[in-house]
Amino acid sequence: MAKHGGNVLATRATREYYDAVIAAEPRAVFHETARCITLEQTPAPAGKGTVAVVCAGTSDLPIAEEAAVTSRLMGNTTELIADVGVAGIHRLFAQRNSLQSARVLIVCAGMEGALPTVVGGLVNAPVLAVPTSVGYGASFGGLAALLGMLNTCSPNVCTVNIDNGFGAACIATLINRL
Amino acid sequence: MAKHGGNVLATRATREYYDAVIAAEPRAVFHETARCITLEQTPAPAGKGTVAVVCAGTSDLPIAEEAAVTSRLMGNTTELIADVGVAGIHRLFAQRNSLQSARVLIVCAGMEGALPTVVGGLVNAPVLAVPTSVGYGASFGGLAALLGMLNTCSPNVCTVNIDNGFGAACIATLINRL
Amino acid sequence: MAKHGGNVLATRATREYYDAVIAAEPRAVFHETARCITLEQTPAPAGKGTVAVVCAGTSDLPIAEEAAVTSRLMGNTTELIADVGVAGIHRLFAQRNSLQSARVLIVCAGMEGALPTVVGGLVNAPVLAVPTSVGYGASFGGLAALLGMLNTCSPNVCTVNIDNGFGAACIATLINRL
Amino acid sequence: MAKHGGNVLATRATREYYDAVIAAEPRAVFHETARCITLEQTPAPAGKGTVAVVCAGTSDLPIAEEAAVTSRLMGNTTELIADVGVAGIHRLFAQRNSLQSARVLIVCAGMEGALPTVVGGLVNAPVLAVPTSVGYGASFGGLAALLGMLNTCSPNVCTVNIDNGFGAACIATLINRL
Amino acid sequence: MAKHGGNVLATRATREYYDAVIAAEPRAVFHETARCITLEQTPAPAGKGTVAVVCAGTSDLPIAEEAAVTSRLMGNTTELIADVGVAGIHRLFAQRNSLQSARVLIVCAGMEGALPTVVGGLVNAPVLAVPTSVGYGASFGGLAALLGMLNTCSPNVCTVNIDNGFGAACIATLINRL
Amino acid sequence: MAKHGGNVLATRATREYYDAVIAAEPRAVFHETARCITLEQTPAPAGKGTVAVVCAGTSDLPIAEEAAVTSRLMGNTTELIADVGVAGIHRLFAQRNSLQSARVLIVCAGMEGALPTVVGGLVNAPVLAVPTSVGYGASFGGLAALLGMLNTCSPNVCTVNIDNGFGAACIATLINRL
Amino acid sequence: MAKHGGNVLATRATREYYDAVIAAEPRAVFHETARCITLEQTPAPAGKGTVAVVCAGTSDLPIAEEAAVTSRLMGNTTELIADVGVAGIHRLFAQRNSLQSARVLIVCAGMEGALPTVVGGLVNAPVLAVPTSVGYGASFGGLAALLGMLNTCSPNVCTVNIDNGFGAACIATLINRL
Amino acid sequence: MAKHGGNVLATRATREYYDAVIAAEPRAVFHETARCITLEQTPAPAGKGTVAVVCAGTSDLPIAEEAAVTSRLMGNTTELIADVGVAGIHRLFAQRNSLQSARVLIVCAGMEGALPTVVGGLVNAPVLAVPTSVGYGASFGGLAALLGMLNTCSPNVCTVNIDNGFGAACIATLINRL
Repeated sequence: MAKHGGNVLATRATREYYDAVIAAEPRAVFHETARCITLEQTPAPAGKGTVAVVCAGTSDLPIAEEAAVTSRLMGNTTELIADVGVAGIHRLFAQRNSLQSARVLIVCAGMEGALPTVVGGLVNAPVLAVPTSVGYGASFGGLAALLGMLNTCSPNVCTVNIDNGFGAACIATLINRL
Repeated sequence: MAKHGGNVLATRATREYYDAVIAAEPRAVFHETARCITLEQTPAPAGKGTVAVVCAGTSDLPIAEEAAVTSRLMGNTTELIADVGVAGIHRLFAQRNSLQSARVLIVCAGMEGALPTVVGGLVNAPVLAVPTSVGYGASFGGLAALLGMLNTCSPNVCTVNIDNGFGAACIATLINRL
Repeated sequence: MAKHGGNVLATRATREYYDAVIAAEPRAVFHETARCITLEQTPAPAGKGTVAVVCAGTSDLPIAEEAAVTSRLMGNTTELIADVGVAGIHRLFAQRNSLQSARVLIVCAGMEGALPTVVGGLVNAPVLAVPTSVGYGASFGGLAALLGMLNTCSPNVCTVNIDNGFGAACIATLINRL
Repeated sequence: MAKHGGNVLATRATREYYDAVIAAEPRAVFHETARCITLEQTPAPAGKGTVAVVCAGTSDLPIAEEAAVTSRLMGNTTELIADVGVAGIHRLFAQRNSLQSARVLIVCAGMEGALPTVVGGLVNAPVLAVPTSVGYGASFGGLAALLGMLNTCSPNVCTVNIDNGFGAACIATLINRL
Repeated sequence: MAKHGGNVLATRATREYYDAVIAAEPRAVFHETARCITLEQTPAPAGKGTVAVVCAGTSDLPIAEEAAVTSRLMGNTTELIADVGVAGIHRLFAQRNSLQSARVLIVCAGMEGALPTVVGGLVNAPVLAVPTSVGYGASFGGLAALLGMLNTCSPNVCTVNIDNGFGAACIATLINRL
Repeated sequence: MAKHGGNVLATRATREYYDAVIAAEPRAVFHETARCITLEQTPAPAGKGTVAVVCAGTSDLPIAEEAAVTSRLMGNTTELIADVGVAGIHRLFAQRNSLQSARVLIVCAGMEGALPTVVGGLVNAPVLAVPTSVGYGASFGGLAALLGMLNTCSPNVCTVNIDNGFGAACIATLINRL
Repeated sequence: MAKHGGNVLATRATREYYDAVIAAEPRAVFHETARCITLEQTPAPAGKGTVAVVCAGTSDLPIAEEAAVTSRLMGNTTELIADVGVAGIHRLFAQRNSLQSARVLIVCAGMEGALPTVVGGLVNAPVLAVPTSVGYGASFGGLAALLGMLNTCSPNVCTVNIDNGFGAACIATLINRL
Repeated sequence: MAKHGGNVLATRATREYYDAVIAAEPRAVFHETARCITLEQTPAPAGKGTVAVVCAGTSDLPIAEEAAVTSRLMGNTTELIADVGVAGIHRLFAQRNSLQSARVLIVCAGMEGALPTVVGGLVNAPVLAVPTSVGYGASFGGLAALLGMLNTCSPNVCTVNIDNGFGAACIATLINRL
């Protein structure tokens, strides 16, 4: 793939997989938390504004980082805002300026999946919600978060598949290039 | 039941049902939004603090009112705080003092069911979450709200059955009498 | 609501409901297929491009029309493309130009819910997928269509709740104003 | 965390994890059945009464112990009553005094999840029900027990997430401090 | 059917249906609570012991009566024990002698469906569990009760379909004739 | 347990587990297919007739053997009839005499779970249906077989939990002792 | 539609609907059990063999008749074999010759949905399975029958949507014309 | 099995399993992608036309190859058309001639499972749809693809169990021999 000259992105990569890649292509970069390998050869067209990637904490960080790595590779100025869960809403409020200055937002959340709805109420931009499989018991592998996001009462939220940080970044890129 | 001298509470009552009751027992009171009929003959033991009943808006009001009517009949000073949804979080913040002065809270929500989690993060008291069947599509009759509440990241939230405002008020009463 | 001077939109309205509204506010307009009542008093800010609303046929038309009526009221040039199902893909191809000239697309589908994926592969714009509750048997009230859309292999598709044409139009408007 | 001077609790810890912790902080204590590590530096405020933690047998014991360890660390006099399943109800009756003298109860159960309902009928205190993932076949990872508890006919029972002994102890603590 | 000389049983019959039947066959009997019509022409072979039909209260009574009417028509001495729910276990204990003298038991329960398990622990006879569709919210039409019964920890309990009082009586008859 | 003088049965045992048991109690017997360890010290009361254990083939054999081993230890003459699936119904017919001479039948089946219904139509005795988790894809761990058995159109069939051969044998024993 | 000269088929039609059709097109025929209206103007190409439509009894007859009416209108010699359920397998055996002489079979069943599997074991032709929504309780609107058919152990069975007699007949026609 | 002289097919075989087989029967062939071992001793009766096996890409290839290997062993001229997903519909169109010349088609797809519907709209032959367990998150092990195929709007599509390439080839063989 590297020979065709474009940018390359592999998601859900392990360090073992990266070791094999780096042998063949030394310019490849490993993003450990995001579990992504990237090779940037041609800068992507620059997005017009900032993409904010938001999540509640360390558990959701791999998916949020996957979205952020993808977003950056696709040419977007990308700001990652972690540790802003709905159970401690003052931390979210402290980030209000960052959130409101984004052109499009990607919000990742597991468990009850309420963060996109709360963020959606604070901004006037499109919010792409990513349910994560973080949780246990009645989270049913991310189903609870997914249903929460689909039933959002914020009218500016739409949803992608569970753990699909990559897909959210693709849509954010399309929107940010408009 | 009225003849035994205690208080009587009938939930999910229609006006037709009330018309039949009032003929037999003229002291009975109909609570239209709550769909409850009450007959208070003996004041219940007074709770020690305030029970706050919280919901997002008009759709969840019947269940919130059912909880409030039950709570009052059981001897609790009860404050109903409606119209404080998670998508407009400033309205919730404006009620922070009321929320934080309650000894126990009942929080009713349909759709994504995130309100108990957000309220739980603002107070240091037990929160009884009541999922409501309000919603459509992927709410699946209140299942989405129920799962959201069970997966809460606020450690002071526990949950009762869908639309069970009565049950939440019973537990709140036991707690408020401690 | 009309007295505040803004635009008013009521979704899922019946003709009986409209008859009551028209008595109070003669300028209100009823959109029968969309089951919406609108009152336009102040033109909304114009969107920059066209919003395409796409569906497969007459069964999905009420939701598609709800999206189209909402989109127009919110200031978007809106094109409705009906009768382009995945089982007769040549009809969809005949509309390729219209699809590719839209700035953002809303695609409504029931049953197997495959239309947003196929449309997503034909365009380079964001696609907002709306599952509808059209179907029977194993459609389980739109669940099959919803799962199909969440599992799309087109990376430019995101999804809203079942039958939520209104929500899709809100997001399309935010995107089209960028 | 130990350096901040407060108490520390880690749930779902393995012995391997404990071996790493003990090297850095020799005062840490490992609770093997509960799979918890605790470090008590500052006594928590004492609860006013007893928290009873109840379960049916050895399978549910890890979750019951997690609740008990948490409850004790949070300052509650805590009594663990194990081996009192619903299929041998005389064993439960033999514990009636202990159950009735508790100020708040945590009842853990897997399989059909009926224990909180039966206990709830014997006491006049709040019962916090914890479904466990113990079971096989149609228990579906604790779903059967969870649904059983949500549908309880005892009005003093509310429910937390599957296997969430920690959360139940947090709520019990709030109640016991009232 | 009456002309063939055997006994006839119609379940889930309305009074309207009975009015039509009685016109054609005046010996037919209507069992209102059970919603059954019976015509006994030939006494069925007598069962050897008593079939006990047990339920918690008025909501489950139609299904319990359907089982009892069927059981009697099939030749069994049948004892109906109603109002013995798990949340008030002393009422159940008061019936211990009746329960323990039955040769086979049919136990009907809705909501959390725990009654067959508790009864199963009190007797040494086969228990046929009948989940009923009584309940609301997370009872999901009897699913919660069904799962509770399948996950019973009493080894003498087996289960039939939701609301299938007729089927339970058929199996009880086969067992009671042994 | 062996010291109390009764019979001992351990289900779902591995060979490794058996090796540990045999060291402490040399009379213990390992049933490899059934994955059971038994120790018979006191003959159980003899059942009055034969218990037939029926299954379709090698995949269901472990559960069928668990039922057969349990049934024999509990004092029943037990006949195992394997390899009689519903897709080759002539093999089932060839066993009609054996089936019809049983006093009670245990029928195990995975996949579509139709065998208990077909057997139930051939005999006039109680049929205890055991769904097994054998299958793949839409069998959902035995759920398809379980639902098939609960919806049986044979009125002499009742059902236990998925893979619960032990429980079926307990009930069969109670019936066979009548 | 009639004016285009082809054949017309309307499924799920009521008598009221037919009364409206007959006024406009007197040649239209109403099939009451099948709930279909047909207008045959041009004979369809004849199928090469017989299509057998099989079902268990009166409850499944509307769907079986829908399949049979469709099959005949599409040019197939069609034989309807009703009343051959799996709980009375001798009735099915009595039809073995008819079943085995069919070129393709449509088998409709509700409840446990086992009939297609049993028929599939008796013939060497393709079997199209149609789950019906007939049943109650744990049939969940035909889901139990659907899962049973998908998990069939007969390798010549494939499945269509719940109650889709029309679709099964379309596929049978394509096969019978080969 | 080889000694009986017929053809032998083992599905879901690993290389380790093959190593054991090859020692006993050196003529056995291993199909690595299909995870099948075959031994052809007697040519099967030749099918009359071509069976086309279609899938979207490398993830679905194991199931598609399982279907193709089975189809060839059963005597069918078999064409495998891979890499024709619905999100890049021009690749599918380029194969229109191959698709339309097949006598029967097997279409495998995971994720949203839309490929059989789109292929079904392009051909006038029976389409056997095979959902695969390829996907993540809300694919729920192939459930999303399965529901998509059952809800197809193409009337010439029927469905087998998830990952059941073998079964689809059996039915295709029966059809192709007609």
